[in-house]
Amino acid sequence: MAFTLSPPLPHLLPPKTSRAGPSLFLCQPSSSSRMGQQPRAGSKLMEFPHLLDPHRDTMLSLISAVESRLGSHLLPSSVPPDVEYYQNESGTSQGTLCVRCGIDSSPVDFILASWLHLEQPTGGGALDITNIAGYLKSSTDVPHFQFELVQCSPTYFILFLDLIPRRDTVRHPDYLKTFYEDTQLEARRKRLVQLPEVQPYFSSSLYFRGVVSPTGILVSIKCEEGGRERVEEIIREHIGPISNEVAGIWMDMCVGEGGGEVREAERAELEKRDSFIKSKAIEMDLSSSLPKQFGQEVADRVLRVIKSVYKT
Amino acid sequence: MAFTLSPPLPHLLPPKTSRAGPSLFLCQPSSSSRMGQQPRAGSKLMEFPHLLDPHRDTMLSLISAVESRLGSHLLPSSVPPDVEYYQNESGTSQGTLCVRCGIDSSPVDFILASWLHLEQPTGGGALDITNIAGYLKSSTDVPHFQFELVQCSPTYFILFLDLIPRRDTVRHPDYLKTFYEDTQLEARRKRLVQLPEVQPYFSSSLYFRGVVSPTGILVSIKCEEGGRERVEEIIREHIGPISNEVAGIWMDMCVGEGGGEVREAERAELEKRDSFIKSKAIEMDLSSSLPKQFGQEVADRVLRVIKSVYKT
Repeated sequence: MAFTLSPPLPHLLPPKTSRAGPSLFLCQPSSSSRMGQQPRAGSKLMEFPHLLDPHRDTMLSLISAVESRLGSHLLPSSVPPDVEYYQNESGTSQGTLCVRCGIDSSPVDFILASWLHLEQPTGGGALDITNIAGYLKSSTDVPHFQFELVQCSPTYFILFLDLIPRRDTVRHPDYLKTFYEDTQLEARRKRLVQLPEVQPYFSSSLYFRGVVSPTGILVSIKCEEGGRERVEEIIREHIGPISNEVAGIWMDMCVGEGGGEVREAERAELEKRDSFIKSKAIEMDLSSSLPKQFGQEVADRVLRVIKSVYKT
Repeated sequence: MAFTLSPPLPHLLPPKTSRAGPSLFLCQPSSSSRMGQQPRAGSKLMEFPHLLDPHRDTMLSLISAVESRLGSHLLPSSVPPDVEYYQNESGTSQGTLCVRCGIDSSPVDFILASWLHLEQPTGGGALDITNIAGYLKSSTDVPHFQFELVQCSPTYFILFLDLIPRRDTVRHPDYLKTFYEDTQLEARRKRLVQLPEVQPYFSSSLYFRGVVSPTGILVSIKCEEGGRERVEEIIREHIGPISNEVAGIWMDMCVGEGGGEVREAERAELEKRDSFIKSKAIEMDLSSSLPKQFGQEVADRVLRVIKSVYKT
């Protein structure tokens, strides 16, 4: 989803944090402009500083899976270096952005990855947000992919993992059956929410709630008792594997045989719906939060790239 | 919503209960066929047997509010007596159904109310389900109203309280703003879910999850510690007042000035979406569960009435 993808979403963060000025981040294109390769010397990409090990490992594993499965579908990243990595004036908040567009013959529109480290102005520590999203073209109605993991404190995380519907599921029960029921996505959600530390999370944005699929995983993970060790265990043993499974299901849909093809006449409708999601994401998450966190000049630079990718 | 309205929904009930054979119930038309008047001698309508006092009071209060605000919009009930009240062969399970259709000039399509007492064949006690729903015509795009309160055990309830969107909120953010944001529905949801006994509830039906609005209240209430007394308190102090507020907001929309009018050209789309919701409700909740609970003959009789009201 637009929102949560690129600039990490105020609407996903707890009200207090979000007011403090969340924003945008995306991670790691390398200098060779291929995810998964070594970053150029001095670049911050693929480093994932500030993260707990299992959080970093989850990102690296997802990027590696996307690279290996969809790499032949993707062009090199065309994000300019000063948007690949950017920071605020004092250098306390940092962001990265990698976007690789699909080649003409691919159903992939673009894959976006990022990390963002946001020092909270109120002295409330830092937020660390990581994000991988896959948007598809209107030649297919396969859902978009979204993974976002936010570290709000050493023992408090928010996870958004979903295949974002491209159609109104009320009007298209067959869509629900193909992409959500037959793929057993609910079983993955259930595995995660059965953990006592995991609770449903309600975004402050009503719009965003409507964007999430019926099997969307939108949860908070609070480990006050087990502490950092338990958080690491949950990410390593549960969030990592489940995220990889969902990403695998999504990539099977994208590049697998059959299903998802959209007739020419229906593409405009799909594009229209997608464009609402993207515009709202930028309006809600980026337009106000990026300038607050990084200053207007950096924000303008980053927003320009994101808007060109989102085609909004 | 169709589903939850009339026959109370298997998909809303915990998996075990639902398998035991849920079903349909609707309450109280009186012999004079007006909700809110005294039932005819011998009729079970408006009696709400089996319910805790605050549960009964909540239903009576909602019915009274609908009657007083929308009464002039409604025709008398035309439900035949053997569907107004019905039971299984042994008399252990009982159901009622009241439906009042809107007059020609009203935006109200119909108001449906019911209660259902379902003896569980497994000896697991009884389910008591009460339901009030308001469906509107396609001349307006004001959401439908749905209240459903299910007593699964003396200390375990499920509540579904919502204004069901008539449009895809992703495609229509203005719809979301008018009917969900400006009306402060989220504040009502939050008031309820802040109680420690109240938890988000996930329907087993993915389709149903997509039908619920972003501010929809779909929760379980478990009072293992406080027992029946605490359940009664929660219904009396919280569920009752919040349900009345949401119903009030909905009725303001229905019969208030401005907003919600739909151009002729758009009505077919609205009708199409509504028809999916209704068909799915009957398919999911009634077609299999009613015969199990009441036998084929009674089920056919009740289903015939519901299908004619739903126009499916």
